Amino acid sequence: MISLPDTLQSLIDSFKKLPGIGAKTAERLAYYIAENTNESNYNFSKNIINVKDRLSICNVCFFYIEKENICNACNSKRDESKICVVQRPKDVIAIDKTGFPGLYHVLGGVLSPLDQIGPEDLNINELFQRLNDNIREIIIATDTSLEGDATSIYLADKLERYNSKIIVSKLARGIPIGGQFDYIDEMTLAKAFTERTKI
Amino acid sequence: MISLPDTLQSLIDSFKKLPGIGAKTAERLAYYIAENTNESNYNFSKNIINVKDRLSICNVCFFYIEKENICNACNSKRDESKICVVQRPKDVIAIDKTGFPGLYHVLGGVLSPLDQIGPEDLNINELFQRLNDNIREIIIATDTSLEGDATSIYLADKLERYNSKIIVSKLARGIPIGGQFDYIDEMTLAKAFTERTKI
Repeated sequence: MISLPDTLQSLIDSFKKLPGIGAKTAERLAYYIAENTNESNYNFSKNIINVKDRLSICNVCFFYIEKENICNACNSKRDESKICVVQRPKDVIAIDKTGFPGLYHVLGGVLSPLDQIGPEDLNINELFQRLNDNIREIIIATDTSLEGDATSIYLADKLERYNSKIIVSKLARGIPIGGQFDYIDEMTLAKAFTERTKI
Repeated sequence: MISLPDTLQSLIDSFKKLPGIGAKTAERLAYYIAENTNESNYNFSKNIINVKDRLSICNVCFFYIEKENICNACNSKRDESKICVVQRPKDVIAIDKTGFPGLYHVLGGVLSPLDQIGPEDLNINELFQRLNDNIREIIIATDTSLEGDATSIYLADKLERYNSKIIVSKLARGIPIGGQFDYIDEMTLAKAFTERTKI
């Protein structure tokens, strides 16, 4: 059996470790790199290293920042009466595309007793430190998982006790736009039924 | 609009340049790298650079080798009476998995007048330099494209004139194993009909 040179095999193995990249795709990508220009490969390689070397987290909202730069999400002119609380930094980009005008706060995960993640492991105290008289609404946009829901209930409760004037909301659950009934799970359909709205 | 830090955006752009990686997948992979360990990222980055720095091509069969190493495809104990001619180094691995016991020769492409690729741009002279009395059969395994077929006819003709004792063959065309008629294109089906074999 003819085997590939080690350098090429190692690159295939590196690609295989990425999420959603199977054996065939990893091979295709490695062959592409092998045939690609030196400059393009050098840039790719440098970009991978840079992400760890130069990327950091804002100590106010916990979104990604370049080291020594100011935070893009905190310092652009935004509606300071609303904070949207999300699990991961990348969720900020997803929600920002919808046109949400307010501020963000990244929790860095959700409560999960099984994984021994408690309130002190998340950026919850930092959220309360941001609360001031300007803030009218906190939108909790954690995942629709069991842990995500538990975290939103925990936060809503804590916020209510801290300052009952702040409105705490969560994103609507229901049928996705363009969704066909056959493809929607029962739980979502049941939720869409109980939370039906007047036309 | 909140934008991602440049380092992360550059990495997404690098991933997007890879074949078959769309915008969504590129984002997912870049976020994964951003959350990954330093060591793992360093290895990935190094493997990309190594492929160009340390990978070379055998000057006999033109398969990939590590620089200063001997060729895996030429120097393993193989049946020296058969040479399989392929377009690309990676085709060697694909055909080797079928259990072909002979030697390989990588053309480095196919004849393509439109792209100004003539016989002198391919490793054709080098193939003829390898021919000796041991060789009984040359199997031409170029792609089933117009250019691939033209190249196989060109080679077969040239080999016939050079030494008519050498058998020149090509891979069978027909219905792929597990293929369903509805999904097979007309050309393949027509070819499978005209080249039908006795049961």
